Amino acid sequence: MKRIDLNCDLGESFGAWRMGEDAALLALVSSANIACGFHAGDPAIMQHTVALAVAHDVAIGAHVSLPDLQGFGRREMSVSADEVHAMTLYQIGALQAFVRAAGARLAHVKPHGALYNMAARDRTLADAIARAVHAFDPQLRLFGLVGSALIDAGKALGLPVAAEAFADRRYLADGSLQPRREPGAVLDDADLATAQAIGIARDGTVKAANGQPVTLHADTLCLHGDGAHAVSLARQLRTALESAGLRIAAPGAA
Amino acid sequence: MKRIDLNCDLGESFGAWRMGEDAALLALVSSANIACGFHAGDPAIMQHTVALAVAHDVAIGAHVSLPDLQGFGRREMSVSADEVHAMTLYQIGALQAFVRAAGARLAHVKPHGALYNMAARDRTLADAIARAVHAFDPQLRLFGLVGSALIDAGKALGLPVAAEAFADRRYLADGSLQPRREPGAVLDDADLATAQAIGIARDGTVKAANGQPVTLHADTLCLHGDGAHAVSLARQLRTALESAGLRIAAPGAA
Amino acid sequence: MKRIDLNCDLGESFGAWRMGEDAALLALVSSANIACGFHAGDPAIMQHTVALAVAHDVAIGAHVSLPDLQGFGRREMSVSADEVHAMTLYQIGALQAFVRAAGARLAHVKPHGALYNMAARDRTLADAIARAVHAFDPQLRLFGLVGSALIDAGKALGLPVAAEAFADRRYLADGSLQPRREPGAVLDDADLATAQAIGIARDGTVKAANGQPVTLHADTLCLHGDGAHAVSLARQLRTALESAGLRIAAPGAA
Amino acid sequence: MKRIDLNCDLGESFGAWRMGEDAALLALVSSANIACGFHAGDPAIMQHTVALAVAHDVAIGAHVSLPDLQGFGRREMSVSADEVHAMTLYQIGALQAFVRAAGARLAHVKPHGALYNMAARDRTLADAIARAVHAFDPQLRLFGLVGSALIDAGKALGLPVAAEAFADRRYLADGSLQPRREPGAVLDDADLATAQAIGIARDGTVKAANGQPVTLHADTLCLHGDGAHAVSLARQLRTALESAGLRIAAPGAA
Repeated sequence: MKRIDLNCDLGESFGAWRMGEDAALLALVSSANIACGFHAGDPAIMQHTVALAVAHDVAIGAHVSLPDLQGFGRREMSVSADEVHAMTLYQIGALQAFVRAAGARLAHVKPHGALYNMAARDRTLADAIARAVHAFDPQLRLFGLVGSALIDAGKALGLPVAAEAFADRRYLADGSLQPRREPGAVLDDADLATAQAIGIARDGTVKAANGQPVTLHADTLCLHGDGAHAVSLARQLRTALESAGLRIAAPGAA
Repeated sequence: MKRIDLNCDLGESFGAWRMGEDAALLALVSSANIACGFHAGDPAIMQHTVALAVAHDVAIGAHVSLPDLQGFGRREMSVSADEVHAMTLYQIGALQAFVRAAGARLAHVKPHGALYNMAARDRTLADAIARAVHAFDPQLRLFGLVGSALIDAGKALGLPVAAEAFADRRYLADGSLQPRREPGAVLDDADLATAQAIGIARDGTVKAANGQPVTLHADTLCLHGDGAHAVSLARQLRTALESAGLRIAAPGAA
Repeated sequence: MKRIDLNCDLGESFGAWRMGEDAALLALVSSANIACGFHAGDPAIMQHTVALAVAHDVAIGAHVSLPDLQGFGRREMSVSADEVHAMTLYQIGALQAFVRAAGARLAHVKPHGALYNMAARDRTLADAIARAVHAFDPQLRLFGLVGSALIDAGKALGLPVAAEAFADRRYLADGSLQPRREPGAVLDDADLATAQAIGIARDGTVKAANGQPVTLHADTLCLHGDGAHAVSLARQLRTALESAGLRIAAPGAA
Repeated sequence: MKRIDLNCDLGESFGAWRMGEDAALLALVSSANIACGFHAGDPAIMQHTVALAVAHDVAIGAHVSLPDLQGFGRREMSVSADEVHAMTLYQIGALQAFVRAAGARLAHVKPHGALYNMAARDRTLADAIARAVHAFDPQLRLFGLVGSALIDAGKALGLPVAAEAFADRRYLADGSLQPRREPGAVLDDADLATAQAIGIARDGTVKAANGQPVTLHADTLCLHGDGAHAVSLARQLRTALESAGLRIAAPGAA
């Protein structure tokens, strides 16, 4: 039986501000990327989100970010490899404290937002992240974009990796994502997104923007937690994937 | 042979700002309390300070604080026990990541500044800190003021503790510290501070402000890292303690 | 014709996080207290909120706070009078830049959250705030709790003041607010809150918790912007006040 | 009599951390660029620095930055023009509050660090800054690199501008700065820097890296406030410029 992981960004509230339907989404995903205080999340929210994830038996990952609360970690910054290495370790450790106190296990690390994009194309930064993950725990799994520098960096260190694809983003014929600023880059139609998810998970292919089929080997699909229909789309996706004969499970889960 | 721990606050630089003579002090102390990013320290500085402490074979502790960079963690805040519990776990974990990556061991936790003072007198907050330390690792040692609520809270949970005294602060007849705002509360004279350190470490007594001897059982003496003469005072203290037949060693060290 | 000001806290979003129904509330109030970046608000949000307030012809005030984004300015901090003086000036100036760029006029200053409570009872801090407002512009109006140290401090410097009362908080027989932690301290019933608002605005009296009538001279009523029913309650209050013959207008407005 | 402005970055301490020899430098410069809390400076430090500048009769400018305390505003960020516009207004206003309370006048605005570099080459961001300055006060002078997009943007709006040159940076034959990473880009020799300053200020020329003379029309020279010899270099420069017959004065000063 084929399997696919469904991951989602969670714990993105901060202080008095609420964001995301965490409880509803945790019932639908197999992996949770939990914000670590640099783009969202504060200690109380992290503790609460870890407890929720444990209660739902969902694999827990550290969603590490550039230090930019105001920009929600979405603004690229010219940080050095040493800075990235240190901030990755810091955030993994901070989240791990709550995981450990809850008697659970940290399963993976995924860079967030601008750091995710930078690590996808810049091997030096990707290596800095991979080295931090490896130094903390060589059994931690590194999540990154399919075919990215980050996946290469993880593999080079012998880390387990999970290549990530998107149900609702249009792909180009070379397997890369169509830039978000171009029209049609986001699949707003839930049925199209669901069909793309099944194609990726079951067949390892996706229909590119030019109509051609593209091979795409992904271990995990990212569900977006924001937007008005996040929960209903996530539910539709999960149901469709299960109906298509896929087992939803975190990478490495028994 | 009697022993005493000498501890010092370190890693209190931040970004482009430098503070403290870390390298010089690490040659003189047996325990280092390393800032965790809430009152001072950033990920790169924490990583660097941990490496320095490991190189000097000094016991490493997390110096956890209220979230107040601008006030250097010295301004009391009306935080709840849940907030204190979560911020303690967060900071311990963040520091532990660097300790673990360095192949070392986290030895203790000491609250900083305003949080130290609040935890000395408020048992509810003290319990929140002790529970966080215990949840992370019941073998971590909790540092707190001699006779404080924090020491009581740590003992109640079965944590190893280290009762802290000050070489350069005047004590009252009941064993408490003379409030800092009162004249004479700080022993500016290095010889007086040294004599008080020996009295505490060797004899378990201190001469109170009223001239009476007071019994004071302390496991660790705090050396201040700031001030123009921090390093020379630390050196004088260490030399005097060793000349008085004391062994300088972290609590729990072999 | 009697008049009363209705004020509301606005611009309390931050970065990617949304809070409050600003546009709807601006149609109902006469004064807007706009967050200045210390408890909420960032430069882009401040600029946007000022533009909205100008479009609705609502008087603009600086809602100055302790520096505590994570705690939304609700946690008391042991800050010095000098610190409070400087942070008040900083925030007034920051907001004034957007007001000036919009060709409008800054009308008032109101401390937020913990700072509001501290300034209500601590005359030294109240004086620090009043001096900052006066140094910036002696024609700025200072908003504070009826009968508070802040109102006294403003009057002592010759500042115009606005004494604030609450429609939905229970008063005690001495004219003070029933502490929020006590049962019944908040009037959840919209009709009760509306009746209290009319009593304050038209008659200058309020029925205390013990049933006695209490004299209460207020210039402005605070409408809460949060909560599920904030907008509908605000609309009911305004309609009822107008029906009772009151004119809703900012203090000092023509 | 020819004149030149000497400007320096000041007020770059933060909280408990000290940086720079502000008092000594204020005796030597004619313009002070004061940090506004985004890369350095907090309200108390800004108030203190403004008072110092007023006491020394030095022209006061807002040293506006990207929001990055940890990186001291030196890390480029992918911010939008709207974000830059709003953060510029915010910081100008915040500093202006202290200037106004001190009975002084704000004279200029200079972007700091990464924002300075971005505004030198990116006309869209340069326009956003210039529009913010103009909206606040069209008489404020905009400081920017000689020949930069920022100077062009200021002129296009009719703002007074001051073109900035560096005594201790090597220029290329096209009048641009030699990139800092290249060897020889910084003139470490005080005599060389002094000679270059006189060449720029008196003759409007500088000897480029390839030995050719280059025309360079600058209104202000930047003195660096950091480094062990900042004060002695500043003193040598000022003395040499005065001996060469130049008058040291802020642009626009009587």
